[in-house]
Amino acid sequence: MTSVTPAILILLRHGQSQWNASNQFTGWYDCDLTPQGEAEAQRTAQWLTQANVLPDVIHTSLQTRAIRTAELALAQLGRSWIPAKRHWRLNERHYGNLTGLDKAKTRQKYGDEQLLAWRRGYRTPPPPIADDNPWNPNFDARYANLTPDQIPQSECLADVVARLMPYWYDAIVPDLQAGHTVMVSAHGNSLRALAMHLDQIPEDEIAGLNIPTGMPLVYELSQKMMPLEAKATLARSLDPVAATKAAEAVAKQAG
Amino acid sequence: MTSVTPAILILLRHGQSQWNASNQFTGWYDCDLTPQGEAEAQRTAQWLTQANVLPDVIHTSLQTRAIRTAELALAQLGRSWIPAKRHWRLNERHYGNLTGLDKAKTRQKYGDEQLLAWRRGYRTPPPPIADDNPWNPNFDARYANLTPDQIPQSECLADVVARLMPYWYDAIVPDLQAGHTVMVSAHGNSLRALAMHLDQIPEDEIAGLNIPTGMPLVYELSQKMMPLEAKATLARSLDPVAATKAAEAVAKQAG
Repeated sequence: MTSVTPAILILLRHGQSQWNASNQFTGWYDCDLTPQGEAEAQRTAQWLTQANVLPDVIHTSLQTRAIRTAELALAQLGRSWIPAKRHWRLNERHYGNLTGLDKAKTRQKYGDEQLLAWRRGYRTPPPPIADDNPWNPNFDARYANLTPDQIPQSECLADVVARLMPYWYDAIVPDLQAGHTVMVSAHGNSLRALAMHLDQIPEDEIAGLNIPTGMPLVYELSQKMMPLEAKATLARSLDPVAATKAAEAVAKQAG
Repeated sequence: MTSVTPAILILLRHGQSQWNASNQFTGWYDCDLTPQGEAEAQRTAQWLTQANVLPDVIHTSLQTRAIRTAELALAQLGRSWIPAKRHWRLNERHYGNLTGLDKAKTRQKYGDEQLLAWRRGYRTPPPPIADDNPWNPNFDARYANLTPDQIPQSECLADVVARLMPYWYDAIVPDLQAGHTVMVSAHGNSLRALAMHLDQIPEDEIAGLNIPTGMPLVYELSQKMMPLEAKATLARSLDPVAATKAAEAVAKQAG
């Protein structure tokens, strides 16, 4: 019998961003990392070095906070030179017309129940972003090559799954099949969508998964591109105890 | 008559590196930028913003100092999201067994004439790097996918021209033809090789061209992918006076 080396996939949620820190709905708004977020990116590199899990290819969203997290982690690893691929399908969920609003004020205005539905309802998109909203992605040069019908005006998690999975199959899986260790630097909801597929999490449970920032989740995948071992998503962290604690903090902040 | 928009090419030499600062032959050694080099990358962004020349695609070598220069300049421009392509054919000239040696001591040992031949002789490669030299690129993971005969053990400028031009024609030209504004973040000698082609500089004059660090050279190219206007390479700088002064400083340092 021949033994087959598993494919290695690293999922990384970007470190703290400016709007995480200021408690605003972010989505497709393109804020940068805070100094804390930069430190988280560096810590990521330490974890990967200790575990000797070294990415050969990096996939990121088109958003600065995910790209800079990848750049900082790779610089720390001495691997800035690996091929970098970027795509909007890895972007954070589009928060519609909530983009930019203060989370606490929005809760006061619309109430706990409505807010929870928008934040965690699998099939409940927020109201679409207004045409004249300055954060409408129609005004953003990085999306200028998309046809208008491709650019979301708001998304629920089901929408993210639908637009992300083609990129998984067409871009990430081929790199894994070629034997590369692939790192995906992306966002809370795009990674939640990917974990949902890989860890077979049902729709009514996915809201309970909070992916901590700056803590790589490492998957060993079979040739069928599914995990070799079934286990909880956070147990795939290189430090599951810290990841569980951090996830609780994310859940609490999300409240 | 229809007017055709010229293709825009930006050539950028990375900012000061650690071994520039310590006066060692660098070549394929992978040192990082100094704080001054980081500041130069940011200044690059200011020049490009003022001139409203915004890259759509970035090509870099596989060397950290060129990649980080690009990352820092693009972050400053708010354009970290543009497609990034990296290739060893854009690397600095390989300095053979001089790699890592102190420039002043090497001059004392071998004399002015020999040093000048190695540094500026178009067809004079330095002695090949020893198999057990710790900086032999055979030991570097980023070149693991090249066949052994592709990895240089030493290069003169003619060698750089030979390995760079296929990348110009096969990778950069297609992006220019597609209408993109292309930035190439690379090195003194790989950019010298490219300028030699574009500005039709003869072999016996190319040694006189010193490309300053952190100062973008902007080419407007015809559909034939040659400059619309014949002019001196440094006159393509966004600040030709500063570029000429900086080039004189490079020449003096090179001595």
